[in-house]
Amino acid sequence: MSPTRRIVIMAEGHFEWHYGKTATGIIRYSQDPVVAVIDSTHAGQDAAQALGGDLGRGIPVVQDIHEALRYQPTTLIIGVAPIGGDLPRAWRAQLLTAIEAGLEIISGLHYFIADDPELRAAAERRGVTIWDVRRPPDKKVVAAYKPHRPGSHTVLTVGSDCATGKMTVAIELDRAARARGLNSAFFATGQTGIMIAGRGLPVDRIISDFIAGMVEEMTLELAAQHDWVFVEGQGSINHPGYSPVTLGLLHGSLPDAMIFCHQAGATTIEGYPHCPLPPLPRLIQMNEEVVNWLHRQHNSKVVGISLITRGLSLQQAEEAIRRTEDETGLPTTDVLRFGPEKLLTALLQHFGAATS
Amino acid sequence: MSPTRRIVIMAEGHFEWHYGKTATGIIRYSQDPVVAVIDSTHAGQDAAQALGGDLGRGIPVVQDIHEALRYQPTTLIIGVAPIGGDLPRAWRAQLLTAIEAGLEIISGLHYFIADDPELRAAAERRGVTIWDVRRPPDKKVVAAYKPHRPGSHTVLTVGSDCATGKMTVAIELDRAARARGLNSAFFATGQTGIMIAGRGLPVDRIISDFIAGMVEEMTLELAAQHDWVFVEGQGSINHPGYSPVTLGLLHGSLPDAMIFCHQAGATTIEGYPHCPLPPLPRLIQMNEEVVNWLHRQHNSKVVGISLITRGLSLQQAEEAIRRTEDETGLPTTDVLRFGPEKLLTALLQHFGAATS
Repeated sequence: MSPTRRIVIMAEGHFEWHYGKTATGIIRYSQDPVVAVIDSTHAGQDAAQALGGDLGRGIPVVQDIHEALRYQPTTLIIGVAPIGGDLPRAWRAQLLTAIEAGLEIISGLHYFIADDPELRAAAERRGVTIWDVRRPPDKKVVAAYKPHRPGSHTVLTVGSDCATGKMTVAIELDRAARARGLNSAFFATGQTGIMIAGRGLPVDRIISDFIAGMVEEMTLELAAQHDWVFVEGQGSINHPGYSPVTLGLLHGSLPDAMIFCHQAGATTIEGYPHCPLPPLPRLIQMNEEVVNWLHRQHNSKVVGISLITRGLSLQQAEEAIRRTEDETGLPTTDVLRFGPEKLLTALLQHFGAATS
Repeated sequence: MSPTRRIVIMAEGHFEWHYGKTATGIIRYSQDPVVAVIDSTHAGQDAAQALGGDLGRGIPVVQDIHEALRYQPTTLIIGVAPIGGDLPRAWRAQLLTAIEAGLEIISGLHYFIADDPELRAAAERRGVTIWDVRRPPDKKVVAAYKPHRPGSHTVLTVGSDCATGKMTVAIELDRAARARGLNSAFFATGQTGIMIAGRGLPVDRIISDFIAGMVEEMTLELAAQHDWVFVEGQGSINHPGYSPVTLGLLHGSLPDAMIFCHQAGATTIEGYPHCPLPPLPRLIQMNEEVVNWLHRQHNSKVVGISLITRGLSLQQAEEAIRRTEDETGLPTTDVLRFGPEKLLTALLQHFGAATS
């Protein structure tokens, strides 16, 4: 995103860690300043108070777009991703106000703002840009099953469920790799990652026949230019609703290695209490098997685990990490709490061993 | 389809078994007569001669739409499904001629005829209907992971690759079940099946986030009304391009049992010579595992196999079937050659045993 942006995030009713994950992702990783967050249920607090941590200190949470305009934003980001992704009706008036005030609109909803006649007409009148980041490229590409550039390393984040840190881990690993001087890229595949990176592929909006093909095309392009490609995973292979998206990423990116992401203590798919998670070692094996159905000679492996330990004490977090390491035999951390170095080291060792 | 239709099938350059599978499916299963097939490379033959068998005896293969109009068709079906699914350029003039002659157009291409300005305008002028069977419902449904009606049996056809008989087996089993007086339905999920059934869900055109949800919705609806639901599978879980579609069907329909479909003798994915097929017992186990990732208490099983033995002598076909039975321990047949009774019996026994 251009460095002149001043961002206001629309997160009405959802400015918290879970459903507000686009908002927290933008605050954490955007290159441009977030000047306000709209959520009337937290108005008057700052973002850090609303979230109950350090992230967002000094960013005001406001009642509505009218109050947000005091902070001279240039850009309204729709930072809530409800299940299904539609535009909440109550937001239409606020979006119109933002457009009339000259703000560009960036939306990650399944409902395309630029296709809404009223909002599009308002944006055209005011000369304002609408970027629906979930709008997929208008292309039809079937996967060709081509090898990646030899010497490149494609690493996909997978997990036990949605919202287990797959984007965060991919971004943190890419940044840590670049900090070490490695030639690395982050391949964004979801609305928040695309907003942060300014490019990417909204995989959950791609027609099922072409998802693997379009993921392959971008993976090959990035692996041609970079030695390390960290691909943001989506959903989970054991998710009743989103597993096809996950499989499109697994078979499209054909990762050389994976990092597994998990919410510490979770035992069922969120929102599906009757759908228990398989044990972690089995979940890890499942993801490895799925890649190796196609890619047997490469023997793709999960080489590390990132847990979300938010809400646990430091001691509890360390215990959860140790238990996971005992259960799986894999190096484990919480990248947000303890940094990505342990996982990056595991990846470097894995490929060092594999190429020696 | 209405019983007053007289069908001409456009299969230019592709009126053969493999890429012409829409054409052969329509000839075999449509309730309405096929009065001509367009393929200039076989013009002058009848369909049976062109295909090298008994199917299509007496149906003329003609040079172009002009010649086809002699047979007084009411309906032009586009019966070729090339990889990617676009409209071949050379066909535009023939489609315009058909529209101007008052024929309705039924197309299974990814390219929507009704969205083509020139063809749509021509159809509107002439008052002709265009049915793009691959156009998905304009809905957003995330799978809810709801149980099917107790007592219903959902059977999905899976396979080692595309074009291994999954539609044919589902149709044949549904017909055989109804012939035995069972309350059965066929759930069409591809262009040919939808043309034959007159309804269905074009799963390969559905956005990845919603494929499992939309398959679940239709499965639940059919299982509420029918004791047997035979779901047409697509692709294969080990296909580099189409595996997400297959997984959407597996996790959306959550089959109680599966029939596995395979081209006798195939060892790699068609069009992907570097992508070998796992051994049949492993392929079968993979499909079972994928359902049971979600659906463990049901312990969904593959209960029979249908081989395509076309091109083999009777003795060779029987040997291929016997070898497959030895290798997998599962009842095996070629439903087109030997009928579906062996597989239907296996299903009845499987569920009889399970419910006793």
